[in-house]
Amino acid sequence: MGKRYAIIGGDAAGMSAATQIRRLDPEAEIEVFEKGSTLSYAQCGLPYYIGGVVPEAEALIARTPEQFKEKYKIHAFIRHEVTAINPGQRLLTVRNLDEGKEEEYAYDSLLIATGGHAIFPNWEGRALRGVFPLKDMEDAQRIKGYLAAEPVDRVVIIGGGYIGLEMAEAFHLLKKEVTVIDLAPQLAGTFDPEMAAYAKEELERNGIKVALEEEVLSMKGESGRVTAVTTKKAAYPADLVLVAIGILPNSQLAEKAGITLGMKGAIRVNDRMETSIPGIYAAGDCAVQYHRIKRIEDYIPLGTTANKQGRIAGTNMGGGEARFAGVVGSAIMKVLGLAMGRTGLSEKEAKGLHIPYEVVSIRSRDHAHYYPEAERLYLKILYHAESRKLLGAQIVGRHGVDKRIDLMATCLYHEMKIDDLQELDLSYAPPFNSVWDPVQQASTVAKGK
Amino acid sequence: MGKRYAIIGGDAAGMSAATQIRRLDPEAEIEVFEKGSTLSYAQCGLPYYIGGVVPEAEALIARTPEQFKEKYKIHAFIRHEVTAINPGQRLLTVRNLDEGKEEEYAYDSLLIATGGHAIFPNWEGRALRGVFPLKDMEDAQRIKGYLAAEPVDRVVIIGGGYIGLEMAEAFHLLKKEVTVIDLAPQLAGTFDPEMAAYAKEELERNGIKVALEEEVLSMKGESGRVTAVTTKKAAYPADLVLVAIGILPNSQLAEKAGITLGMKGAIRVNDRMETSIPGIYAAGDCAVQYHRIKRIEDYIPLGTTANKQGRIAGTNMGGGEARFAGVVGSAIMKVLGLAMGRTGLSEKEAKGLHIPYEVVSIRSRDHAHYYPEAERLYLKILYHAESRKLLGAQIVGRHGVDKRIDLMATCLYHEMKIDDLQELDLSYAPPFNSVWDPVQQASTVAKGK
Repeated sequence: MGKRYAIIGGDAAGMSAATQIRRLDPEAEIEVFEKGSTLSYAQCGLPYYIGGVVPEAEALIARTPEQFKEKYKIHAFIRHEVTAINPGQRLLTVRNLDEGKEEEYAYDSLLIATGGHAIFPNWEGRALRGVFPLKDMEDAQRIKGYLAAEPVDRVVIIGGGYIGLEMAEAFHLLKKEVTVIDLAPQLAGTFDPEMAAYAKEELERNGIKVALEEEVLSMKGESGRVTAVTTKKAAYPADLVLVAIGILPNSQLAEKAGITLGMKGAIRVNDRMETSIPGIYAAGDCAVQYHRIKRIEDYIPLGTTANKQGRIAGTNMGGGEARFAGVVGSAIMKVLGLAMGRTGLSEKEAKGLHIPYEVVSIRSRDHAHYYPEAERLYLKILYHAESRKLLGAQIVGRHGVDKRIDLMATCLYHEMKIDDLQELDLSYAPPFNSVWDPVQQASTVAKGK
Repeated sequence: MGKRYAIIGGDAAGMSAATQIRRLDPEAEIEVFEKGSTLSYAQCGLPYYIGGVVPEAEALIARTPEQFKEKYKIHAFIRHEVTAINPGQRLLTVRNLDEGKEEEYAYDSLLIATGGHAIFPNWEGRALRGVFPLKDMEDAQRIKGYLAAEPVDRVVIIGGGYIGLEMAEAFHLLKKEVTVIDLAPQLAGTFDPEMAAYAKEELERNGIKVALEEEVLSMKGESGRVTAVTTKKAAYPADLVLVAIGILPNSQLAEKAGITLGMKGAIRVNDRMETSIPGIYAAGDCAVQYHRIKRIEDYIPLGTTANKQGRIAGTNMGGGEARFAGVVGSAIMKVLGLAMGRTGLSEKEAKGLHIPYEVVSIRSRDHAHYYPEAERLYLKILYHAESRKLLGAQIVGRHGVDKRIDLMATCLYHEMKIDDLQELDLSYAPPFNSVWDPVQQASTVAKGK
């Protein structure tokens, strides 16, 4: 009999680990316990599924339990919730949600990949029909169901972060009247205010209302159905309310088992993805990530990181050796016609960490100005005031944002200096770039050495 | 009186140096001698100008001599050819091409930025009207003039490299019947055969004929006007012939002055852009470039490199300190709907240098498969068989090629290993990428350590 691997959570991190273990250990017995009814699907695709851009939920699902069984001999149990971990005896208590019964499963090596949950404050009226968080496929199906069954004209989105803005686009595509409310004086809080302003402009240009510095007090309803969101300043009529104010880790199970938590209550892991208890690993939205630029642990739950951490956990569990290099804080979102990308530290973050920095901000174009359809590109780059090492970049535009953010993410990974960007031998032809890439242009106007 | 800087050649390298000298030395007297009638224009835009995508030549011209004078106090003489360099006395002999007279100019510091010229073999019939090289604005104007004045239905392009393929597109846009002839068994010689095959397919799909392994013998004509290109195999009727088989450095002037030449007869320079004669610098298409991956000098004349070398030469001439980091061999071209990018070494090059390598080739998509308009992306990555350091990448597809080539160029610059690509924290949202970037996908299927 092979080594027994148990994995709690069958999404990105969990299934990445499971398949990686299988690659390294052909004899392994791999059991995955997933509370929901879907394994390993593209969570980041949910706004596009709700908005109708992706017509079928099936398109988002990588593999079924049957496929995992057939291809990888992985036993993935859906609708199975792990209710307790007993690290001393290496036992899990698992509840079959359909049959209502509990069973114990023994493991030799355990991965906790329980993901995160949408923050859903205890506002008055939050239980009204028509008020939704959005974190998983079930949430998406509920929203789709509600849109199909009920008359929805006005949508209020609470929270102007990635999910909030992607969902603003989704509801806009569905011809809804959309209002985005945020507590902060800006949208897109991971961007600095002047960069975030482009998102607001793009929403408003498309007829989406934006209400900033609005503290939500409650949801009002009639006959159990939401009709408005009230804030300290106003009441916003709403037939549907999406609460998108962030994600927190699902770490209670780990905490109860005595595992140490870290940043924002996420499970603390080392660079091998091991928790404080030997033989127990954690990966994905339930775990912390080391931030290469901040040089401290952070909590930035993203699918890319979940996949990386899952693979690394699986490698180490399966007898290999892999270490998580950390994140640099890269993210991108589409806001209607606009792409907004960021990597590294924002000015706010650099200030918060007391890192002395310089800023260079330029306006350029995604490719040669004379070649058709050259679009504006707004770049803001931060670098260390003393070492001149890159600290972060924010880029906004209609085309070519992803390219430069990934370029800058790679430069950040390599601790490159602002001045050295000019040394990069980047590809050039007029339809693709300028002879100096915009990030190199920014480099040349950065304050002198 | 300030130090006297002379620059031979007023295009990318020359004018980059001139403006850089001005930044560092406000008192400098800067004189630029340009043989042609245009300064500092976007040579890479010429195919798009000829094809009508860029309607006006003026759009390609960065600045006029008057603007250089006004903004930078740079004296740029157009239609002035330097006919001799006297390094001992630090004198240039300069012929005013309009007035036919020669004058001498003294300099303290000299930059040779004489560029390159299109190879134009001594084929019988090469002097016929309708047979053109394409290197500079004058060539482009001649081709435009010929197209306007003469009936041109059939165009034969000799050479299937960057210029040849970009011009095939240009003539195709002008509704000409286009044939591309190449001596080699493939187009796009800087790509490996299986990657180059996509270019052939794309041309043929658009009705452009491709004739490979065809050795050109002569041009035939009637009444002084070209009517056909004959090869060892066939005769190709032609109303216009473009010869695009490569570029060679304009280094005769330097050679006559006793300056050492290197690769392909280009001027040998060190990383400060100094030639073998103290006080004389060279930059751009007339000079060699250090190749970071090959670790030897090379000759890959490109606008990006000319700009970099020009700026570095200018910095050093003006009393600053800058060193050329070298090229990694990045290039990209648009072939109708296709983008073809490459960086580092091709398999052919690695073989030629006796570098032990492994190859990983994958087929992926430019963004999440379920998000609309996901396009095929073909990637080929080479890495060192022992050190596992990246050696090169070739990528072909309809979208997202430039992004990954620049990413790989940056990874090559940093001597990254194939396995470490998985560590990069790249930005992800379904419209922009997959959760693992295609280059990371390639990394995961690369042969194990």
